[in-house]
Amino acid sequence: MTMALTLYDLAGADPDRRFSPYCWRIRLALAHKKLPVETIPWRFTDKDVIAFSGQGRVPVLVDADEALAGSWEIANYLEQKYPDRSLFDGPVGVALTRLVESWTDSLLLPGLVPLILGDVFAHLHEKDRAYFRASREQRLGMTLEAACADRDKKVIGFRQSLEPLRATLKMQAFLGGEEPNYADYIVFGGFMWARSTSPFKLLETDDPVAPWRDRLLERFEVARMAPGYDT
Amino acid sequence: MTMALTLYDLAGADPDRRFSPYCWRIRLALAHKKLPVETIPWRFTDKDVIAFSGQGRVPVLVDADEALAGSWEIANYLEQKYPDRSLFDGPVGVALTRLVESWTDSLLLPGLVPLILGDVFAHLHEKDRAYFRASREQRLGMTLEAACADRDKKVIGFRQSLEPLRATLKMQAFLGGEEPNYADYIVFGGFMWARSTSPFKLLETDDPVAPWRDRLLERFEVARMAPGYDT
Repeated sequence: MTMALTLYDLAGADPDRRFSPYCWRIRLALAHKKLPVETIPWRFTDKDVIAFSGQGRVPVLVDADEALAGSWEIANYLEQKYPDRSLFDGPVGVALTRLVESWTDSLLLPGLVPLILGDVFAHLHEKDRAYFRASREQRLGMTLEAACADRDKKVIGFRQSLEPLRATLKMQAFLGGEEPNYADYIVFGGFMWARSTSPFKLLETDDPVAPWRDRLLERFEVARMAPGYDT
Repeated sequence: MTMALTLYDLAGADPDRRFSPYCWRIRLALAHKKLPVETIPWRFTDKDVIAFSGQGRVPVLVDADEALAGSWEIANYLEQKYPDRSLFDGPVGVALTRLVESWTDSLLLPGLVPLILGDVFAHLHEKDRAYFRASREQRLGMTLEAACADRDKKVIGFRQSLEPLRATLKMQAFLGGEEPNYADYIVFGGFMWARSTSPFKLLETDDPVAPWRDRLLERFEVARMAPGYDT
């Protein structure tokens, strides 16, 4: 079986520093399915490079003559095209995973912003900095520096917001149960965003979320060996 | 097939007013599986009535010579004993549903407390009132009246906290996908707790969560016909 999967993957100044939480979902989904992939480091301002996908953000996956954009679309494409080693375990799993995605996108990732966005900025390629600052400051309604002030205080609320995750991981090894699946990769992608860019300690040492994160690092070399910070 | 299912179900002064969010999970799970059940109205202080279950809270389900306590244990028992019309669609569904339960128990239900607990109290049987007030005030660290002050303000934060649910229900009819399953009943149980006791309007009229709630009421006569408030 010959495959020619290519993933455009957000990178920092160091082309090996891959930090998009959405791209991490797909890198882990590919690793879960044991699908080899060539990743291409991509920067925010390389809009022309992925113009063929009809939009301007990564992840973008190219599979032979197909181009797909958006982590959810890509994950579902992979599940249909390469059904072995399921990411969802069927349509009910897909439906339930959408709530995990919605929780992550509306709560976990916004909760990480004031903790790590300054560190993300520090790792950007020079050519991305003006774009990143302008677009994020417009979205936040304040400067990056103001948004990231007082993170020692803000992390307390962030940790509290993880309670549903924590309570679940006290009862089972992974969100998917005994084995991780795409629900885990969605949430873990947020932690890989932080790990790739920020030395800030997100979790208390005795937080039950920490060993889950360690189990995923243990299992996925692609995550464990990526440039980042052990916190 | 002869069945003898009996459910001890929390009731108010009116024995037909059933308001426990945990009992509602099981009533809906039973209806989902089309299993007939006899429900017995139970009050908080009827500890001796369920002493046979080895603990003091409902739901308690009796199935022939088996007694089960705790909504999660009961739901999983029903799934194994009566596998038709699955509540979870397999072990991955069970695992993912635990996150829905954790989200509901750590966020949705606590968010409802300051909005409806005063109304819950008003519907209690006389014999339960002293117990309920003392136990809840100890847990809350304040009087019921103080906990329920300013609900017009607090409901704004409650509505914001529903964003993961809202985002999901913009994309699919039920948490379980095209059809509801136990994940829906867990969350909907919280709304039945409110509906059974409180005239307070929880959702804005154009909230995408509202038509989901209506779809479940439409589908389950046991919920639709129960004494409660249309808000």
